[in-house]
Amino acid sequence: MMIIMKANSTPQQVEHVIEHVKAAGLSVHLSQGIEQTIIGAIGETHNIPADRFEGLDGVEIVQRITQPFKLASRQFHPENSIFPLDGFNIGGEEIAVIAGPCSVESRSQIVETAVAVKEAGASALRGGVFKPRTSPYAFQGLGEEGLEYLAEARAQTGLPIVAEIMSQTQLDLMVKYVDVLQVGARNMQNFNLLRAIGETQTPVLLKRGLSATIEELLMSAEYILAGGNRQVMLCERGIRTFETSTRNTTDINAIPVLKNLTHLPVILDPSHSTGHVDYVAAVARAAIAAGADGLIVEVHPDPAHAVSDGKQSLRPERFAEMVKQVGQIAQVMGRRLVSVRGEYQPLKQGWA
Amino acid sequence: MMIIMKANSTPQQVEHVIEHVKAAGLSVHLSQGIEQTIIGAIGETHNIPADRFEGLDGVEIVQRITQPFKLASRQFHPENSIFPLDGFNIGGEEIAVIAGPCSVESRSQIVETAVAVKEAGASALRGGVFKPRTSPYAFQGLGEEGLEYLAEARAQTGLPIVAEIMSQTQLDLMVKYVDVLQVGARNMQNFNLLRAIGETQTPVLLKRGLSATIEELLMSAEYILAGGNRQVMLCERGIRTFETSTRNTTDINAIPVLKNLTHLPVILDPSHSTGHVDYVAAVARAAIAAGADGLIVEVHPDPAHAVSDGKQSLRPERFAEMVKQVGQIAQVMGRRLVSVRGEYQPLKQGWA
Amino acid sequence: MMIIMKANSTPQQVEHVIEHVKAAGLSVHLSQGIEQTIIGAIGETHNIPADRFEGLDGVEIVQRITQPFKLASRQFHPENSIFPLDGFNIGGEEIAVIAGPCSVESRSQIVETAVAVKEAGASALRGGVFKPRTSPYAFQGLGEEGLEYLAEARAQTGLPIVAEIMSQTQLDLMVKYVDVLQVGARNMQNFNLLRAIGETQTPVLLKRGLSATIEELLMSAEYILAGGNRQVMLCERGIRTFETSTRNTTDINAIPVLKNLTHLPVILDPSHSTGHVDYVAAVARAAIAAGADGLIVEVHPDPAHAVSDGKQSLRPERFAEMVKQVGQIAQVMGRRLVSVRGEYQPLKQGWA
Amino acid sequence: MMIIMKANSTPQQVEHVIEHVKAAGLSVHLSQGIEQTIIGAIGETHNIPADRFEGLDGVEIVQRITQPFKLASRQFHPENSIFPLDGFNIGGEEIAVIAGPCSVESRSQIVETAVAVKEAGASALRGGVFKPRTSPYAFQGLGEEGLEYLAEARAQTGLPIVAEIMSQTQLDLMVKYVDVLQVGARNMQNFNLLRAIGETQTPVLLKRGLSATIEELLMSAEYILAGGNRQVMLCERGIRTFETSTRNTTDINAIPVLKNLTHLPVILDPSHSTGHVDYVAAVARAAIAAGADGLIVEVHPDPAHAVSDGKQSLRPERFAEMVKQVGQIAQVMGRRLVSVRGEYQPLKQGWA
Repeated sequence: MMIIMKANSTPQQVEHVIEHVKAAGLSVHLSQGIEQTIIGAIGETHNIPADRFEGLDGVEIVQRITQPFKLASRQFHPENSIFPLDGFNIGGEEIAVIAGPCSVESRSQIVETAVAVKEAGASALRGGVFKPRTSPYAFQGLGEEGLEYLAEARAQTGLPIVAEIMSQTQLDLMVKYVDVLQVGARNMQNFNLLRAIGETQTPVLLKRGLSATIEELLMSAEYILAGGNRQVMLCERGIRTFETSTRNTTDINAIPVLKNLTHLPVILDPSHSTGHVDYVAAVARAAIAAGADGLIVEVHPDPAHAVSDGKQSLRPERFAEMVKQVGQIAQVMGRRLVSVRGEYQPLKQGWA
Repeated sequence: MMIIMKANSTPQQVEHVIEHVKAAGLSVHLSQGIEQTIIGAIGETHNIPADRFEGLDGVEIVQRITQPFKLASRQFHPENSIFPLDGFNIGGEEIAVIAGPCSVESRSQIVETAVAVKEAGASALRGGVFKPRTSPYAFQGLGEEGLEYLAEARAQTGLPIVAEIMSQTQLDLMVKYVDVLQVGARNMQNFNLLRAIGETQTPVLLKRGLSATIEELLMSAEYILAGGNRQVMLCERGIRTFETSTRNTTDINAIPVLKNLTHLPVILDPSHSTGHVDYVAAVARAAIAAGADGLIVEVHPDPAHAVSDGKQSLRPERFAEMVKQVGQIAQVMGRRLVSVRGEYQPLKQGWA
Repeated sequence: MMIIMKANSTPQQVEHVIEHVKAAGLSVHLSQGIEQTIIGAIGETHNIPADRFEGLDGVEIVQRITQPFKLASRQFHPENSIFPLDGFNIGGEEIAVIAGPCSVESRSQIVETAVAVKEAGASALRGGVFKPRTSPYAFQGLGEEGLEYLAEARAQTGLPIVAEIMSQTQLDLMVKYVDVLQVGARNMQNFNLLRAIGETQTPVLLKRGLSATIEELLMSAEYILAGGNRQVMLCERGIRTFETSTRNTTDINAIPVLKNLTHLPVILDPSHSTGHVDYVAAVARAAIAAGADGLIVEVHPDPAHAVSDGKQSLRPERFAEMVKQVGQIAQVMGRRLVSVRGEYQPLKQGWA
Repeated sequence: MMIIMKANSTPQQVEHVIEHVKAAGLSVHLSQGIEQTIIGAIGETHNIPADRFEGLDGVEIVQRITQPFKLASRQFHPENSIFPLDGFNIGGEEIAVIAGPCSVESRSQIVETAVAVKEAGASALRGGVFKPRTSPYAFQGLGEEGLEYLAEARAQTGLPIVAEIMSQTQLDLMVKYVDVLQVGARNMQNFNLLRAIGETQTPVLLKRGLSATIEELLMSAEYILAGGNRQVMLCERGIRTFETSTRNTTDINAIPVLKNLTHLPVILDPSHSTGHVDYVAAVARAAIAAGADGLIVEVHPDPAHAVSDGKQSLRPERFAEMVKQVGQIAQVMGRRLVSVRGEYQPLKQGWA
């Protein structure tokens, strides 16, 4: 960390800052130029917030050199993190496609969807049982009943289950049923929840907050990793911007940036990041081409009757088409889908 | 709610949408023009999410006419909500100034600050004991020990206490100690927490999320109101934009917009909305001039030694100056500070 | 256009709005429900701004149904616009890769780069001679001298030339030298410039503004099309958001959205949309996978000595690698690069 | 400027950067710590773009210490810039209120408005004759005819005239008629226009771009100042964010930030920054309370018949009310309106 003093800072102020740096357990490298004095703070700076020094008299700017996260960092762990999930690996050569409805609505709905997405090439099943709804009057999910239906769908198809947890009070219940705990965008900085999840050994799918920076996403992953749970995958799901023609703006840059900064697997959710069925396949292909390790996609057997997110939920046939396209992009990338090992054949122009 | 059908929608699709509207308990007003068909959905639409109809075949746009919130709405409750808080009222003629440190750090720090801010004209004391920190390695707050120190500060000064709650597991403890439960920006859509707080009768200060719309803020208030707790004040604390010269962008428009849409009291946090001591007073004055009912401001007796937010914490003397300025703006607005009833005298030019 | 009246609007207000609609040359479809009155305004609404009715007494919302652009619209012109550019076509099966330095710096620099990018598979050469620099003290471009060097590079390589125009006063000069007029992000709403360009027959590359919506981009294209120049290609180059880990945020959603809304060719600029050489190839691949018709990329023979944008300029070798990758994605999409018709062979995992 | 080298940079890379710094006319202060090497670049750095060094091998970050603008900087010119405008001063103790319609529509409309706003306390008249409209089909302004009407309004009222210039080709004409050249948000980075205006001696009102940072606004002012025209006032007019309940988001922080960074007068446009008549007065009061030197407000005698911006244009009576409120805030700030020197009397609660 470098603390740049104001041009008119006094020797006393410099001395005072140096004391603070030492008090924080760091050592000091002082550089006094003609125009400015710079105090280098050296040591384990990733656990020192910059605002510890920003309020000191005479300080102009505090510039962090090293990243504020460690366990999540590729510097700390250069190789990709690969972890197993019921018969396949996340983060390695294989590309995972998680699919299913926004909400679990009934036994038949989730079982039917599970069978359909498996057939189409999905490697895991998603389905919400606790739903973070903007309105207190909207459907809030089936709760434990929904988890039982998910378990049944898994029993019939063999697909591992991904479901969202909204509160640490649901943790015991969720861990009993699900293969992957999803932390939603609105809870990305629910630090109590992150800490509780860090104490389990259940794999986690951590979604980026609507307006969270990439660094903040990695800091939230750090909470879980620091607790001892090393099986975290990150999920770009679109950020909030001024553009209104799509529900969110897919930050496709986040894929190569994250692959550069961290060893954790990175997946993309084109359903939420676009909000419209007509754009899901195009953005799913883009994600894999950009280097993502997987996708999570909303699929519903009858979107018109979905209790939520009908506008962005693919019908199984359309999902199957998307999987086929994504599989070909994966092949170009030297990778392959978990469960689709079809032949390569160039498709005709005009994929929407 | 108006459902506008695509130009090329079929009579079957129109019929299908009408069935859905009726199934949602709404009645239908059909308008078939030459170019487009519009289906008006009439009734208690505030509890029907628009996405219930957006995924139906043939639907172009779903346009909500009435607001998706009800209890928070000024249409439902035209008069300002005024609720008492230990000797004064929030939301009425009086303007509240809540002040104190970001974090409670020690008994002496919080008592000393309480005495100083009371002297300077504060009407309540803030201080965090559970801290939502981006980094797992940063100071996370004193917990219950901090609550005891806050209680002591209240005992000595008579100032009511405002502190942030981060999880519903802290609710019993918090309710025992604090006068106002603060819900932070990162938890504005922690719906489990909102629902739990809605079941108490403790007043709530609900902060707007970093990228939450004004409508979403009101929907989150609706969660608490719907639970039965009617004492909710809303807090603008800056939103996240592209501008980097301040920590956040104060959305000053939110003040008149909220006063127009809702009967709930509206306050502003110029410390977080600017992130810099040099801009706090100017934005505090602006808030009151725009019609805000109060302020919440970070004050620390020794910002250089604050464990967090030192850069944006006012020293007590500077806070006293701010209160004086704000009091004069309040007078022009036909209002007055809770505890400062000084004389009016025009100040000299050049308030920073 | 639908004009939704307030619940408490008076018959006089409704009558008054109807008069205004008729005065605008539109006909009226009146729908009076129990809760609300809706006035449908029917006819050539694309040339009536919504704010013409928004200020009228009693009006709640004006909702546009049809798009405010016409010539740019795919409804108006369902087939892709394909236009020739010195030996190849933009907007058809072939994918164009425009490459070259940010600024033309010298004869040798631009000729050397032109030879290198042609060899690597570029289909056109870019190079700025009038530079929109944030600072008045920065290098502003070589002007006409630069155009002469560009012409020389074209003579040696056969590559068509793309260069940015900043003002209508440069139009005569530019048209004499360049094959494609580039309108930069900062000039996307320089309507005088757009109108002047609309009167030429030189193809145009229109970049999206930093915070322009997709609809605004299409409205700016409409200015040029309405003037009679139908050869407009659109360019996504990243939008401004809160994320700071990249220079801009690539709005990859814009690709399928634009391909859906308009018949005009759509290309992407991964150099500006990421701002960093390490992310250019990943985002270039994503663009083609999402359905883009081409790319424009900054390449410099010696980025360390570039007068501008060195951080985001690829060296020719790295550009060649990118072209190879992009070519394979194109093949999967059933398309091909203009000048690279190599064999398909899956690459090994790990494209950065 | 400080160039921070990567941890693993080589001595050759450091040497290479140093050569570049010297070649840019700067001197070097080298600081080699254990963990990192920092190269301080000292001298006239405001005219060296950071990207000159960012692309060099081994460079991690380039951190600017001094501002990239000079003439606009308060460091360079500590006293407020005050310049005369037909009988009053901008930037001093007096507060200017510029008012008038979005567009000049007819002789009677502009003369009538001028008389009304003067009566209500305006100090200058605004009115557009060249209109930057998103749609090529919308009303584009009366051109020179409009300027003649403006001149007539000035002759009748004595109010100086503010009108927008869209292109340097309009400069000779505009300078002949107007007292203040307005540069609109969409042209804030039309550098050719800025340079042309810099060569005149006509005062300028420079509006901030929709997504321009405060630093970029100051860089655009620097273009005009560097040309020799020192009479530039800056105008905050709202920025583009995710919030849709208002047309733009008023960045009220920009007022104290600009007053801190620059000596130039700063005004605010609450009409565009809110987009709605109901919010104009509240934000106008906030602006003056935050330290702004003036306001520019849209007023129309008959907003329902305005050709543009009817929704945000105040009727003269409502404008008069706003001026009265603003005048009282000004008094508290130790300032006064140019032409309204009424008595102070606290108003009753409830200004909307």
